[in-house]
Amino acid sequence: MDQPGCGPVKRISRLPWRLDSTDAEFEQGFASLLATKREQAADVDAAVRAIVARVRAEGDAAVIALTSQFDALDLTPATMRVTAEEIDAAFEATHPETLEALELAHARISAHHRRQMPKDDRYQDALGVELGSRWTAIESVGLYVPGGMASYPSSVLMNAVPATVAGVERIAMVVPAMRGALNPLVLAAAKIAGVTEIYRIGGAQAVAALAYGTETIAPVAKIVGPGNAFVAAAKRQVFGHVGIDMIAGPSEILVIADGDNDPDWIAADLLSQAEHDTAAQSILITDDAAFADAVADAVERQLGSLSRSQTAAASWADHGAIVTVPTLADAVPLSDRIAPEHLELAVADPDALFARLRNAGAVFLGRYTPEVIGDYVGGSNHVLPTARSARFSSGLSVLDFVKRTSILKLSADQLRTLGPAAIELARVEGLDAHSRSVAIRLNL
Amino acid sequence: MDQPGCGPVKRISRLPWRLDSTDAEFEQGFASLLATKREQAADVDAAVRAIVARVRAEGDAAVIALTSQFDALDLTPATMRVTAEEIDAAFEATHPETLEALELAHARISAHHRRQMPKDDRYQDALGVELGSRWTAIESVGLYVPGGMASYPSSVLMNAVPATVAGVERIAMVVPAMRGALNPLVLAAAKIAGVTEIYRIGGAQAVAALAYGTETIAPVAKIVGPGNAFVAAAKRQVFGHVGIDMIAGPSEILVIADGDNDPDWIAADLLSQAEHDTAAQSILITDDAAFADAVADAVERQLGSLSRSQTAAASWADHGAIVTVPTLADAVPLSDRIAPEHLELAVADPDALFARLRNAGAVFLGRYTPEVIGDYVGGSNHVLPTARSARFSSGLSVLDFVKRTSILKLSADQLRTLGPAAIELARVEGLDAHSRSVAIRLNL
Repeated sequence: MDQPGCGPVKRISRLPWRLDSTDAEFEQGFASLLATKREQAADVDAAVRAIVARVRAEGDAAVIALTSQFDALDLTPATMRVTAEEIDAAFEATHPETLEALELAHARISAHHRRQMPKDDRYQDALGVELGSRWTAIESVGLYVPGGMASYPSSVLMNAVPATVAGVERIAMVVPAMRGALNPLVLAAAKIAGVTEIYRIGGAQAVAALAYGTETIAPVAKIVGPGNAFVAAAKRQVFGHVGIDMIAGPSEILVIADGDNDPDWIAADLLSQAEHDTAAQSILITDDAAFADAVADAVERQLGSLSRSQTAAASWADHGAIVTVPTLADAVPLSDRIAPEHLELAVADPDALFARLRNAGAVFLGRYTPEVIGDYVGGSNHVLPTARSARFSSGLSVLDFVKRTSILKLSADQLRTLGPAAIELARVEGLDAHSRSVAIRLNL
Repeated sequence: MDQPGCGPVKRISRLPWRLDSTDAEFEQGFASLLATKREQAADVDAAVRAIVARVRAEGDAAVIALTSQFDALDLTPATMRVTAEEIDAAFEATHPETLEALELAHARISAHHRRQMPKDDRYQDALGVELGSRWTAIESVGLYVPGGMASYPSSVLMNAVPATVAGVERIAMVVPAMRGALNPLVLAAAKIAGVTEIYRIGGAQAVAALAYGTETIAPVAKIVGPGNAFVAAAKRQVFGHVGIDMIAGPSEILVIADGDNDPDWIAADLLSQAEHDTAAQSILITDDAAFADAVADAVERQLGSLSRSQTAAASWADHGAIVTVPTLADAVPLSDRIAPEHLELAVADPDALFARLRNAGAVFLGRYTPEVIGDYVGGSNHVLPTARSARFSSGLSVLDFVKRTSILKLSADQLRTLGPAAIELARVEGLDAHSRSVAIRLNL
């Protein structure tokens, strides 16, 4: 039974959690660490419901009115879509070194994701019955890209590339343009990634427009991409009518490290997640208490020189944790309970440790694989399960952009062989018409 | 833009829809057919929220109190779980012919699903960087089985087999026992399928018990299986804390048939879905108007002799449809818009037609493959996407019971090669700590 908030917890305000797995009270403290809700879900459901209904009823007119209200941007149906000229201009204006980095990332992400394409399977069993699975791409996908601070070109690549690799024909991107401003790097990344259309709209109204369509925007079959509370609520509300990806929570990293690491390297890794969001979480598990102290000191030192130091400091103080264990083997069950989005194994034999671990969105093996490589140019996807959901779900992949049709084909003889068992099961389930649809073909 | 309910619709009450694709008003009528909501979603969210909170806070005591209230069954923590003796007794009491049918179904479903197991992928790219994907089974899964009329042993097999094939170690089944009564066939199917524990509880309280755990029931990581509005709402509410499968809607079948079929065979197939639920939907598309009439007549004739004739008649009258098209090729775009759960191709060359179709949960090829074979003994899964969601989702499979960890492993040299691009992208995204975690390892 889950008992949120019960019992005393060894916690000093404004310092990260420090837990020692050999303490008598460890289990209680660790359970509290796991149970802590990091995200305050704003209750925007009613507001979002009204927006979705309005866009569904009024189409473009509603999207234009809401964009004027929320983004201080006056659009017409003709100016909603970002033009090819604007996209080309953004691409041309991008610094060559940045373009080169985006193109390297795109090539590596594409190469990795091409290996994920599932194969069709068509076969005959011992009776000669034909069975199979056929995979086809989803016809059209909407890609939400946040505005402002969280408008990341790397996320455009990570969301669009699996779709293009899957064979999705139409990728409609929406990105809010507060007072008209768009991040040119996001447009450049969209061009590189093969996004087919871009609209300068955002919020719940953009999600509703993608789901139900307007006069200007054709509806899509699935919507992916991160967003704020309004976007997340809108995605939940349109789910069923269209598909959605996971609702991503704040970023997380777990580093399992032995004492042979440079504390500054590990501190930098912990801070690379902490700087994303005050609700982000960075955890170190180590078998070396002196190393743990050294990392804690290094984090404090490095915090000062970050442009996002306030965010990172709040995340580290509120949600950061350092856990000491007698041996690295003792880290295994703790890591699987955390089920981290990102797991770094900065140990002498990372593969051996990885073989014993079960739940993680992505793993980074060895001392020279900082998680950040996976954010950008490793090739694997950076859209990964958060908030312990790696226990039951996976990062974004080509599989999120295809769907499977199962295949059955019987001859009259094969129906004669299998039919009686189907009739028997239909009979005990009380489904007459089920029985009849088999029996009538067998003159039974 | 979606305009529900607007415009006149060619609809005569208490008769199935009849649409001709060459009519001037066809598009309007077909769009109305697609837009019709078949399910009245009862608003049970608040009631379910209270139940979930109570089970989460009070554990067994809440489950026991709620089971007494809703199922007229008084339990103790000791009697909540169905004993091995009860399961064995149910198995022994099952008629040998039924057992044989269940075992044939189990063997065929297992064989088909074993082919779905995804393969790990570990490789080095041209730079020598190690990448990969590793699949692992979800540790524990909860399986909801409805009570009463919808308590189907075949559904136990369809939900449990993909989990056992995936390697899920613990499958905890819940099934409500109104006044203590359990369907022995459900217990027998659970034994055959390898379910590891069974609890005689149901409703939102059972879903909450599986998600959060109680003193008697250990929590699971994912919950699958069909249920009523309370169960569906509870699954939505616990989603995120645990994984869930799709929320299944009422059953559907689309039959595309030429005039060379026996109208009675096709009528039986249409009724095999209609008998499930008044909200079920059966649609025939044919290029032969005389055949369409003959099927309509055959449906009326057969309706009289079904034990569930009232259900089937209501489904057929309210949601059934017969669509005539000039040629079978004209059926293709209509079928893809319907995106049926089940699609029968009762035509001379079903494979050629299938190759042109895109959206369907499962396809049944040829005149001797009634959909019912897939419900029981074909081998493919009968848990399939409903309500047009085959446009973006797939039937239940082994993939629903595994999750993927992506793998990256770089050497110092490889980090030196890829690092600068990562640093550049972190720089333009304004993420200092991201840059630093790479730069610090390269002495940059």
